[in-house]
Amino acid sequence: MPGTDRNYLALNSMAAPPYQQLEQEFRRLHAIQGALAVLRWDAAVMMPRGSAEVRGEQLAVLETEYHIVLTAPKISRLLERAQANAAGLQDWQLANLRKMRRQRDHAIATPQALISRLARATARAEAKWLEARQQNSFAMFAPHLEEVVLLMRDKAALLGQALDLQPYDALVDEFSPGVTTQDIDTVFRALSRKLPTLIKQAIELQAASSLLPLAGKFTAGKQRQLAIEVMKAVGFPFDRGRLDESEHPFTEGVPGDIRITTRFSPTEPFTGLLGVLHESGHAMYDLGLPAAWRDQPVGRDRGMALEESQSLLLEMFMGRSRSFVNYLRPLLEKHFAVSGPAWSEVNLYRHLNRVQRSLIRVDADELTYPLHIMLRYDLERRILAGDLAIRDIPEAWNAFMEQRLGVRPGSDLEGCLQDIHWAVGSFGYFPSYALGAIIAAQLWESLHASVADIDEHIAAGRFAGMFAWLREHVHGIGAKVSLQELMKQATGKSLSAAALLRYLEAKYLEV
Amino acid sequence: MPGTDRNYLALNSMAAPPYQQLEQEFRRLHAIQGALAVLRWDAAVMMPRGSAEVRGEQLAVLETEYHIVLTAPKISRLLERAQANAAGLQDWQLANLRKMRRQRDHAIATPQALISRLARATARAEAKWLEARQQNSFAMFAPHLEEVVLLMRDKAALLGQALDLQPYDALVDEFSPGVTTQDIDTVFRALSRKLPTLIKQAIELQAASSLLPLAGKFTAGKQRQLAIEVMKAVGFPFDRGRLDESEHPFTEGVPGDIRITTRFSPTEPFTGLLGVLHESGHAMYDLGLPAAWRDQPVGRDRGMALEESQSLLLEMFMGRSRSFVNYLRPLLEKHFAVSGPAWSEVNLYRHLNRVQRSLIRVDADELTYPLHIMLRYDLERRILAGDLAIRDIPEAWNAFMEQRLGVRPGSDLEGCLQDIHWAVGSFGYFPSYALGAIIAAQLWESLHASVADIDEHIAAGRFAGMFAWLREHVHGIGAKVSLQELMKQATGKSLSAAALLRYLEAKYLEV
Repeated sequence: MPGTDRNYLALNSMAAPPYQQLEQEFRRLHAIQGALAVLRWDAAVMMPRGSAEVRGEQLAVLETEYHIVLTAPKISRLLERAQANAAGLQDWQLANLRKMRRQRDHAIATPQALISRLARATARAEAKWLEARQQNSFAMFAPHLEEVVLLMRDKAALLGQALDLQPYDALVDEFSPGVTTQDIDTVFRALSRKLPTLIKQAIELQAASSLLPLAGKFTAGKQRQLAIEVMKAVGFPFDRGRLDESEHPFTEGVPGDIRITTRFSPTEPFTGLLGVLHESGHAMYDLGLPAAWRDQPVGRDRGMALEESQSLLLEMFMGRSRSFVNYLRPLLEKHFAVSGPAWSEVNLYRHLNRVQRSLIRVDADELTYPLHIMLRYDLERRILAGDLAIRDIPEAWNAFMEQRLGVRPGSDLEGCLQDIHWAVGSFGYFPSYALGAIIAAQLWESLHASVADIDEHIAAGRFAGMFAWLREHVHGIGAKVSLQELMKQATGKSLSAAALLRYLEAKYLEV
Repeated sequence: MPGTDRNYLALNSMAAPPYQQLEQEFRRLHAIQGALAVLRWDAAVMMPRGSAEVRGEQLAVLETEYHIVLTAPKISRLLERAQANAAGLQDWQLANLRKMRRQRDHAIATPQALISRLARATARAEAKWLEARQQNSFAMFAPHLEEVVLLMRDKAALLGQALDLQPYDALVDEFSPGVTTQDIDTVFRALSRKLPTLIKQAIELQAASSLLPLAGKFTAGKQRQLAIEVMKAVGFPFDRGRLDESEHPFTEGVPGDIRITTRFSPTEPFTGLLGVLHESGHAMYDLGLPAAWRDQPVGRDRGMALEESQSLLLEMFMGRSRSFVNYLRPLLEKHFAVSGPAWSEVNLYRHLNRVQRSLIRVDADELTYPLHIMLRYDLERRILAGDLAIRDIPEAWNAFMEQRLGVRPGSDLEGCLQDIHWAVGSFGYFPSYALGAIIAAQLWESLHASVADIDEHIAAGRFAGMFAWLREHVHGIGAKVSLQELMKQATGKSLSAAALLRYLEAKYLEV
C-alpha cells in the first residue's frame, strides 16, 4: 500500500475477554436505543405531519437491527463463555451479565416474524383506535383489537415458555422484571378492602368545605416560564435536556440527553405544570442512574413500576402536598399576576386534591386511581386468557365502573376507548401505574423518616436533600438488585400497600 | 405452540430473486441513512449543548452498522447473482445495480479500522480548528491537519487502487461520480483565461454607479415570515419539511422529510433569505427525485456538483436576477415596512450583485467565487500528493490570493483557517462548488430557451414552470444516467464553462 506504514487489518486481531466483548456489544445496542429515542421524540415534537411513513420505515429498520444484534449467535456464545469465566467479575458485572441474559432471553423468545406482524397490526390498530374515538364506535376498533390480541396471546405463550412463567406474568415481566400476578393480587386485595370506604368518607368531608374557582389568563408562554423555574429548582439540567410541548406529555431519551414534554391548557394553570412534574420525575431518575454503567443494561432503570413511582412521587406526593403549595403560591402570583382568596394556599390545596368518582383514568385523583387500574388489570387478563370476548369488553367495562366506582360511562369514549395501551399491544403495563403509587408511598414515608425537615425544604423550594436521598437509595442503584431487594434496602420493608393506605387515610381523612 | 395456528418461522422461507433481495437490503441502508440525517439535524438545531458525546456515540454506531450491512458478503454474493440474471431487468434497475455496486466498491475499499481512525482524527481536528480560529493560530491546527492528511492519503490510495483511478480522482469520485481532474482542469483553464479581465472590468463599471445603504429593522421573526412566504411561492412543502435556524445554513433529511436551516443577520435582510434560497434549491432537488425509487441508490441525487448547481440556481442565478428583485421588492416593503430610493429595484439589484476582491469564500460574489475554489483545488492536490508541506500552506494560500485575486489575507483567519473542509477530511469536495456554478449556468441558459416568459414568471412570483422543467430534465432523472449524459439530454451540450462565461459577461458588462 503506497504512502503508509499502517496495517489497518491487524488492529482488531487482539480479542478482548468475553465479558468485555459483551459490554462492547451492549454499548452498541444502547446507542441504537438512543437513536430510536431521538427518532421517536422528533416524531412527536418536530416532524412534519406528512413524514410519518418515512419515519415509520426508519424506526422499523432500527428496531430490526437492534433485534438482529441482540439475538445473534455471537451474543449467546459470549454469554456462555462469560458465565464460565465469571470468577473474576465484580458484583455489578455479574448483575450486568444477568440483565444481558434476560434481555437476550426476552428477544430470542419472540420470532422476528411475530415482531413484524405485531408492529404492523398495532400500527393499524392505533390508527383505527383514533378513528373509532372520533366516531365513538367500539365496533370499528374491535376487529383490529382482536388481531392484536391474537398476536399478543402468541407472544405471551412463547415468552412464558421461554421464561418458565404464566403467559400474562411473562408480559408483566417485560415491563417490571420480577413482578408477578401474585404480588399484584396481594396489594390489589389490600387496596380493594379499604378504598371504597375511604373514597366515600373523603368525598363527604370535602363536600363540607367551599372551593373558589381559579380565574386568570394562563398563556402557554407564561406557563412555560413557570415550568422552567420549577424544573430548575428541582435540578433538571437544561444543558443535557429539553422541555417541549406535545399532544401527550412524555419523557424520551437517554441519560445525557433527556427530553420531556407537556401540554399547557389555556383555561387552568395545573395540567401543564403537573405534567412537567410527572415527566421531571422520570427524567431525574434517568439522570441519577449510575453514570459509569450508563451504556450497560445494569445501568438502566429497574422496570416501569419503579419508573412510575418516580414520576408519581413528584406529581402526586410532592406536587400536591401542603409544603409544595407553599412554594408554588408566590410563583403563581408572579407568573400569572393573580391574587385574592381563590389563590390562597388552602384553596389551591383543595383544587389539587379534589376526590371525584370520575370516568377518565388520566384525570383521576390519587384515591380513585387504583380502581381504574384494577378494572384494566382484571379485563386484560380475561381478554388474553380468552375468557372475555372482544365484543363483550364495553359491557364488562361499564359494569365494573358502576359496581366499584359508582359511575357508569355514557359512551365508550368515556369507557373502553379511552386508553391507547391495548391498541399498541401494551398488555401487562397497567399494573405498573398502581404499583408505582405503592412504591412511591413507601419511599415517601422513608424519605420523611430519613431527611430531617423535608417539608420545610420543599416549602422553601429546596429539593437537593430529597434527590440526594433518592439518588443514594433508588436512582444510583440502577438495575443492580431486584425491585424487591431495592425496596428492602431503601425502606427496610417488603413491597406492600400499607404505606399507601396510611398516606391516603392521613391525607384524606384529616379534619 | 398453544393458542395459535401460525407458523412464524416459515414466513421467510420463500427467498425473492437476487435483484429484489438487493432492493430490500438497500431499503434498509436508506432507512439507516435517514435516521442518521435526523440525528445530525437534531445535533445542529435542537440538541442540548452537553449531549454531544452521547450523540457522537449514536452516530458512530449507526455509521458502523451501515458499513457492516453494505460490506457484508451477502451483498457481494447478491450483486454477482443479480448481474448474472440481469436479462429481465428494466433500464432503471440496471442503473440501480450499477449504483449499488459502486457504493459497495467505495465502502469495501476503505477498511473499517481506517474509517474509525479517520472519524476520531477528524473529530479532533475539527475541535482544534475551532480553537485555532479563536486564537488565530494555524500552528495550533497544523499537527491535527497533518494527521488527517496522512489518513486521507491512505484512503485516496486504497480507493484509487480499487476503482482504477488516480488517488485524488478517487476522492472526487466519492462526491461527484464520473467527474475527473481532467474535466475540472479543462473548465478551470477556460475560466482562468477570462475571469481576471472580467473582474477588473466589472469593478470599474460598478464603481461608476452609486450604492445607497439599506437601513431598517430586520428582526429574525420578520425575516422568517418573509422567508416562509418565498419558500411557499417556490413550492417548498411544509407538510414534509421544516425551516429552522442554525449557526451555518444546511439541508438535511430524505425526500419526504427535508429540513433546511438558515441564519438571520439582524443588520441586513439578505444573508438569511439567500441562505434560504440556497438550501431550498437543495430541498427542491431532493423532493423532485423519482418517488418510486426514493429508497434505492438510483433514486438519489446525481452527486454533489449537481446538488450545488441546484442551490446556486436558486441563490445566484434566480435569486440575484432583475426579475426576482421585481418580485422581492414589495415583499421587503411589506415585511420590513421600508420604502424610499434605497429600496428601489435598481439599488437592491446593485446590492445583490456587487463584485469585490474579497478574502472570504462564502461571502464572495459569483464573479470572483471560482478563483477561491481554484485556490483550494490547487492546494489540496499538492497537499495530498505530498508536494506541499502542511507548514507551508499559509504562505502558499496568501501568495495565490495576492497573485490571482489581488488581495492578501491579513491573518490566517481570513486565509487558510476559514474553511472547515480539510479538518473534516473533505478533500475533493471543493471542485463541486465551481462545477455547480458551471452546471447551473448551462441549465439556466436552457431554461430560458425552453420556458417561455420565464423572467416574467419569476417577476410575478410564479415558479411552477421553472420547477416543472427542472423536474423533467434534472430532478426526476435521479442517478439513472451519468452527469455528462444528463447534461447532454437536458441542454443538448456537454459540460463546459462556455455558458457560465456568457452569463457572467452579459450580466456584469452590461452598461
